[in-house]
Amino acid sequence: MFIDNLVDKIKEKNNPTVVGLDPRIEYVPHSIKEKAFNTYGKNLKGCSEAIFEFNKRIINAIADIVPALKLQLAYYELYGIYGMEVLARTINYGRGKGLLIICDGKRNDIGSTAEAYSSAYLGKVNIDEGIQETVFDADALTVNPFLGFDGINPFINDCSKYGKGIFILVKTSNKSSGQLQDLLTHEGKSVYEVIAELVNEWGKNLIGKYGYSSVGAVVGATYPNQAKILRKIMKNSYILVPGYGAQGGTARDVVHSFNCDGLGAIINASRSIMCAYKSDTWKEKYSEDEFDIAAREEAIKMRDDINKALESK
Amino acid sequence: MFIDNLVDKIKEKNNPTVVGLDPRIEYVPHSIKEKAFNTYGKNLKGCSEAIFEFNKRIINAIADIVPALKLQLAYYELYGIYGMEVLARTINYGRGKGLLIICDGKRNDIGSTAEAYSSAYLGKVNIDEGIQETVFDADALTVNPFLGFDGINPFINDCSKYGKGIFILVKTSNKSSGQLQDLLTHEGKSVYEVIAELVNEWGKNLIGKYGYSSVGAVVGATYPNQAKILRKIMKNSYILVPGYGAQGGTARDVVHSFNCDGLGAIINASRSIMCAYKSDTWKEKYSEDEFDIAAREEAIKMRDDINKALESK
Repeated sequence: MFIDNLVDKIKEKNNPTVVGLDPRIEYVPHSIKEKAFNTYGKNLKGCSEAIFEFNKRIINAIADIVPALKLQLAYYELYGIYGMEVLARTINYGRGKGLLIICDGKRNDIGSTAEAYSSAYLGKVNIDEGIQETVFDADALTVNPFLGFDGINPFINDCSKYGKGIFILVKTSNKSSGQLQDLLTHEGKSVYEVIAELVNEWGKNLIGKYGYSSVGAVVGATYPNQAKILRKIMKNSYILVPGYGAQGGTARDVVHSFNCDGLGAIINASRSIMCAYKSDTWKEKYSEDEFDIAAREEAIKMRDDINKALESK
Repeated sequence: MFIDNLVDKIKEKNNPTVVGLDPRIEYVPHSIKEKAFNTYGKNLKGCSEAIFEFNKRIINAIADIVPALKLQLAYYELYGIYGMEVLARTINYGRGKGLLIICDGKRNDIGSTAEAYSSAYLGKVNIDEGIQETVFDADALTVNPFLGFDGINPFINDCSKYGKGIFILVKTSNKSSGQLQDLLTHEGKSVYEVIAELVNEWGKNLIGKYGYSSVGAVVGATYPNQAKILRKIMKNSYILVPGYGAQGGTARDVVHSFNCDGLGAIINASRSIMCAYKSDTWKEKYSEDEFDIAAREEAIKMRDDINKALESK
């Protein structure tokens, strides 16, 4: 099942982090961009091919040290059908390198439509009698709980049927996340606490050998106090933590999302890895064309920073 | 601007409804399916081509009577990159027939990522210095408010810049929508009321000549009592109403989403139109291959039912 595979890979690589490939063409070094533009034109296809080359080189550079990739669907939809094709190719390429693939789509809809999203990313689609195909072959998908249980249940069914996982938004990393998520109910709970309890309930039949459920949660690194509360409520949930690095979350902030067993959280960084070559830390040492080595260095630094913070927790 | 165009088309066609093209291969008549499978194979490509033919014939049959199409993105993602290609082609085909295109994606993310979604559906993407491309050329997109203002603002910016629209989920049509949306805050308001007030605030700078904003709302036909309350709170919002027909909402239920001016709401039906040829009302009269005529008849019936209910409101 997904969650056991994830924990196994985290243990094996001693690395509770995930690299987010949320590529904008602006992040891709000139040499790669120019080559793709020359071959395919300065268009959506050219951008997409440049991005695939960029993704591949980052994956090659980090595959032996990280357990999983997080692919933000928005950045693939941004380049249209060519972008979606690169999404499919990146999923397959990452999987071929032994990485688990988390698609970050925050999908949500009524039951019958959530079923379609789930088939697209976690399950299979019916083609004709007795014929099914896998579409985007992810291991896990982020989902939005706003529609309640019947918008989540189709995903849970596929988690169960195909050994996949979901991460449900509970408290997001952005500045205005409190506008709805922090609302206090008349019972004295915040909306994010209510969701956290639902996550427990929804995930209780998918708990694996390490005591964690394939129904996980998303809690932003930028809200360490809420993370402490949520860690206690959702004892069996793996928490996917965005907001580390470029968004401002630090190693000290994210330790609150871990349990005493040193497990229970996986920290994502996207821009700080993809654009490591532009950062103050690495830009003197590595040229633009060495973006992949810089990404690797930054991924190692992130792993070590978080492991160190965990040791002194 | 979007909302003025929408009202103009609703008035011109005397029809406050929208046809949802949320196609599953199971809805497509055998003759179309077999032809596509024979040409492209029993695979995602074959399904997608069959669906495009199905969409085209429905669009041809209804283009003169309805103002807009609603395309549910999940059903295009379901068929992978070929499905997304058919999404793009359906958008262009529908637009060519004079229809406004609402993409139903319920997208949501932190600001920088919401920007990518917005560029993909409402705005333009940067390719290289001075070069931009339109990706999926929709007129409006449904969005999920769970992340608060900074997840919505990028869409609003593109509405303003490119004359587009959004519909923000306020109260969805599904059974368990109340689990979060009906939570009562300590101030005595429900979450959906809090969102409705935010929709007002977020849309106040995009109000057009009819007094309606390009920032609209989604309120399900299946909750007429909540619709009454929400209609009063969001005086300037156009309400996109799903849940009519197959989901159980009736003409009498949806009148509550209209204002006294006879405007303010647009009612969606998807399955009841796409699968009209299978319904008790039309299956005796029309063969499977006449699915498009049945769809037209059902779209006319829906228009007339709703207009009649509005007259006697």
